[in-house]
Amino acid sequence: MRTLVDNIGCIFGIERQGRLRLCGEDMGRMETLKDAWLLIEDGRISAFGRRAEGVPENAGRIIDAAGGTLFPSFCDSHTHLVYAGSREQEFLDKINGLSYEEIARRGGGILNSADRLHAASEDELYATAMERVREIARMGTGCVEIKSGYGLSTEDELKMLRVIRRIRESVPLEVRATFLGAHAVARAYRGRQDAYVDLVCDEMLPAVAREGLADFIDVFCDEGFFTVAETERIIGEGRKYGLRAKIHANELAVSGGVQAGVRCGALSVDHLESSGPEEIEALRGSETMPTLLPGAAFFLGMSNPPARGMIRAGLGVALASDYNPGSSPSGNMRMVCSLASIRLRMTPREALCAATLNGAYAMGLSRDFGSITPGKAANFFLTRPLPSVEFFTYAYQTPLIEKVFLRGEEYR
Amino acid sequence: MRTLVDNIGCIFGIERQGRLRLCGEDMGRMETLKDAWLLIEDGRISAFGRRAEGVPENAGRIIDAAGGTLFPSFCDSHTHLVYAGSREQEFLDKINGLSYEEIARRGGGILNSADRLHAASEDELYATAMERVREIARMGTGCVEIKSGYGLSTEDELKMLRVIRRIRESVPLEVRATFLGAHAVARAYRGRQDAYVDLVCDEMLPAVAREGLADFIDVFCDEGFFTVAETERIIGEGRKYGLRAKIHANELAVSGGVQAGVRCGALSVDHLESSGPEEIEALRGSETMPTLLPGAAFFLGMSNPPARGMIRAGLGVALASDYNPGSSPSGNMRMVCSLASIRLRMTPREALCAATLNGAYAMGLSRDFGSITPGKAANFFLTRPLPSVEFFTYAYQTPLIEKVFLRGEEYR
Repeated sequence: MRTLVDNIGCIFGIERQGRLRLCGEDMGRMETLKDAWLLIEDGRISAFGRRAEGVPENAGRIIDAAGGTLFPSFCDSHTHLVYAGSREQEFLDKINGLSYEEIARRGGGILNSADRLHAASEDELYATAMERVREIARMGTGCVEIKSGYGLSTEDELKMLRVIRRIRESVPLEVRATFLGAHAVARAYRGRQDAYVDLVCDEMLPAVAREGLADFIDVFCDEGFFTVAETERIIGEGRKYGLRAKIHANELAVSGGVQAGVRCGALSVDHLESSGPEEIEALRGSETMPTLLPGAAFFLGMSNPPARGMIRAGLGVALASDYNPGSSPSGNMRMVCSLASIRLRMTPREALCAATLNGAYAMGLSRDFGSITPGKAANFFLTRPLPSVEFFTYAYQTPLIEKVFLRGEEYR
Repeated sequence: MRTLVDNIGCIFGIERQGRLRLCGEDMGRMETLKDAWLLIEDGRISAFGRRAEGVPENAGRIIDAAGGTLFPSFCDSHTHLVYAGSREQEFLDKINGLSYEEIARRGGGILNSADRLHAASEDELYATAMERVREIARMGTGCVEIKSGYGLSTEDELKMLRVIRRIRESVPLEVRATFLGAHAVARAYRGRQDAYVDLVCDEMLPAVAREGLADFIDVFCDEGFFTVAETERIIGEGRKYGLRAKIHANELAVSGGVQAGVRCGALSVDHLESSGPEEIEALRGSETMPTLLPGAAFFLGMSNPPARGMIRAGLGVALASDYNPGSSPSGNMRMVCSLASIRLRMTPREALCAATLNGAYAMGLSRDFGSITPGKAANFFLTRPLPSVEFFTYAYQTPLIEKVFLRGEEYR
């Protein structure tokens, strides 16, 4: 079946050369086409062009874009959206200046999320996570990575990853699963971090691999969490099972996590608030995508990663939401792009590239997703008519998205 | 006609004592009532109560709140939402590090907004502003103040104020109009600021008053704009026509604007990013409401006003959106509340009080609006069921508002 999307005011995010990521200045140069049409066949983009040069005939179905802009769907490469229980009490406690210990005592932090996840059934977890997945789909996200890491026991990590598999099987979004057993040291292992790392490597990981539940492996490599040596060990074990690394690095301190990620050939290193010229230098020429999560730094009032320095050095940069109940209770990738402009001084076009093609790269999906390219999945959304591409992230709270298409079908 | 809203999970924002503003610690203590009903008669709240104690019978119409939370409508006391043309180019230029002069040359700043407004017809201005009014109404705003100030000539200031009057006559929101001729010195008066102040006082103001177009008078009292002496002169002239002052103060510098506002009995002093203990001391015991605009400081990456210090000193604080094309292209008051928590360390309940009752006070409307109080206008919105009041501003991008009521009727 051929579907024609006609009367498109502007297509943004065209990539004709099939590049899997865009780096440096190229990030700001994704192509646009005005007064256009786009053709979908079998759920994929088959062609697009200017209306003035002729519109294809004989389409089985015609979608009227009514002069709106067509954007490629967002590719959100870092979320923790399977969880039990929101953490607004912690939000309030932080405003009230409570200490880390008091907040933990009152139910905040990863370990309390783990307790709640332990108590929740797989069905409950699935139902609440699906609400979040539907929410982000309506906000324009078409590919999403979801991490485990609130389990912290073999049984509960498997429970989370099975929930992610169930989501993957039930939505038209493209979903990737990441095993993050090393998110924190489980309560039962307090003071025995070595034994917990053994558990991750010797019991959790083989069990996860046996069921084929994960695409990637992640470690929270940062001050107070896991060391570079532990990270390298866990990543090395993951590699034996074919799991490529995507790691949490340099959020809280200059942890060496970026360099460890590059050495291990990680697909991405994420957060990077505590980064400088050495981290940028380590990333140059590598295949590792630095992935910035400005929603978390915004919500926690933390410092920003050096996005401009990275782009100036010729790196590609990805943006992701970090959707989670503690540090980033939002999966709205358009807001993430606005935050990247407001806080990281990325231009709207750079931010959109980082949130689409480069995000897809950070999930190993950019052959099929992340840009308007013939042959790629017909994942895109249509907005109201916009005065410019930039308006989309500038008018950051105005409802602008009118229709979402995933694999060529409208998502409602 | 009696309308019963039944099955309310929680009513937030109850004020039983009829206080016109809440100050200091009281801001965080607006009352809630769980498992409740609320009765509307003739567009006003006539009663509310606990379901367990009996639900009124014989209502002509029943609205099922389905367990959601009922909040009083937002009262946004500071906007510039009548304008011609968005300014996303300026957003981009600032990211790219262009100087103030370059940005102005490329169409940024108040003077370029004035040029565009001059070129726009009253009908065009009305149509685009109405889109913004409908947008904020759907986001929960029930009262809104709108300023002139992109006219900067008698004719164009009158044009703006007539547009505001037309909006006021055509929507169920409560609208207040503020004359802000002294927003900037018009291009034609460059280098002749005294002559421009004469124009504001001797020509614009009498013309505005003759047509009864304004409720309030405003001056941008700040470094590079209008001095304290000029502000006091303009406010004094306004008083002759019965216009109370609401002034822009201390955004860019310690301008003396706060003290001037208090001396003149201003209803509010707005912005206050550049404030300290002296400004707080000046406000103590006064009737002037300090009004904070965290959306602007966020969007421009500027410093924050001392909200906690104000509340600790026993002041009431209001929050407003500053919706305008240059420094705050959003009128979403829920996001303003989230920003107040994230950036100003106001608790969610303090922020909601500041954005409802105290915002109504800053428009002289708190006898009739801004809280759930028998006799006040039935302006409120219903959300999906929430785990807590705090969740509403914590989950800051999740669509939660289900139904909006203005004067007892559903707004769609």
